[in-house]
Amino acid sequence: VQQGKPILYSYFQSSCSWRVRIALALKGIDYETVPVNLVKDGGQQFSEEFQALNPMKQVPALKIDGLTISQSLAIIEYLEETRPTPRLLPQNPKQRATVRMISDLVASGIQPLQNLSVLKQVGQESGLAWAQKVINTGFNALEKILQSTAGKYCVGDEVSMADLCLVPQVANAERYKVEVTLYPTISRINKTLLALEAFQVTHPCRQPDTPPEMRA
Amino acid sequence: VQQGKPILYSYFQSSCSWRVRIALALKGIDYETVPVNLVKDGGQQFSEEFQALNPMKQVPALKIDGLTISQSLAIIEYLEETRPTPRLLPQNPKQRATVRMISDLVASGIQPLQNLSVLKQVGQESGLAWAQKVINTGFNALEKILQSTAGKYCVGDEVSMADLCLVPQVANAERYKVEVTLYPTISRINKTLLALEAFQVTHPCRQPDTPPEMRA
Repeated sequence: VQQGKPILYSYFQSSCSWRVRIALALKGIDYETVPVNLVKDGGQQFSEEFQALNPMKQVPALKIDGLTISQSLAIIEYLEETRPTPRLLPQNPKQRATVRMISDLVASGIQPLQNLSVLKQVGQESGLAWAQKVINTGFNALEKILQSTAGKYCVGDEVSMADLCLVPQVANAERYKVEVTLYPTISRINKTLLALEAFQVTHPCRQPDTPPEMRA
Repeated sequence: VQQGKPILYSYFQSSCSWRVRIALALKGIDYETVPVNLVKDGGQQFSEEFQALNPMKQVPALKIDGLTISQSLAIIEYLEETRPTPRLLPQNPKQRATVRMISDLVASGIQPLQNLSVLKQVGQESGLAWAQKVINTGFNALEKILQSTAGKYCVGDEVSMADLCLVPQVANAERYKVEVTLYPTISRINKTLLALEAFQVTHPCRQPDTPPEMRA
């Protein structure tokens, strides 16, 4: 690893890692990926080496500027404050609040509840149904909110942190066989975003640790 | 309700509502409380009237400056940007990242997983054990992080957003009979914070909707 280059601890299929990968790509920040396989060896996030980096035993974690940050939205906010161009938060405080509200709706209100650890606890049979219920509840709310905040993207016509949360969450929804077309605004924005280069190069099917059978 | 006064939709026992109450108190913002009882009538958050305010059917929500914001951390960030004194985020970007990382660890990594809806899904018998496991996992990580970030409070010697997340989460831990004394740094900071007026007046046992038998 080159001295001074940021290091992203990431798993190709982790939706929270994908959020950060998009931020790094949009801002044109060159970085190295260190893959952390959440499944192999019982989960490499449980290794002592990784726990020293992030005691929460989760990806992503970003080493940057001599600091190690975990929690995807905290990472994105740090990148925004230290590498402000192009911006991922609008200038207007009310629009910033809307972006953060949508981001937190996904990051606190949906994603943690459909995480693998919860699904295991709920049980194999009802795990999928639980994930679908959680995502549908969240998407129902998100669809209503987006109907009044969206332009081309989640909040107006500029890509924001909210969009970085939306696309990976839609990918999770599809993985859990949620009927995303039931949410026309979510579907439309997702499709528009997926056409952007920063969303394409960071896609789970194109990461250094993507297994051959899942590459595209 | 007086014209122009912010309105907080809150439930006395909601840890996310408590975070916002502390922010409002610290910043000296006068507001009205509209209680939303999460238990009574099958949950008042499910009423059509409330869903129009917050389609996620959760408290808190804050009506302020003609805007309705949900998601506690988005609310706190908005208050910080529009009412910056006293500040709840440090000036230094690295310390701000640390504050947000700790806040998100609680708001995305612990609280949603021990929420009533998840406990119900896990089942009555194992619900308590699940809540304890989730909180212990989070507190183990938090304790390690705080050992290198804390001064008098979570990050250095200034009260920050991280502290607004810590105290309500410790209260949840105690409610679920987690042995909080196992985490000496968490316990010490919690105790120090609970001595501050803003944490006392906003405490669940002193809210307009606190039932008589839980008042103190």
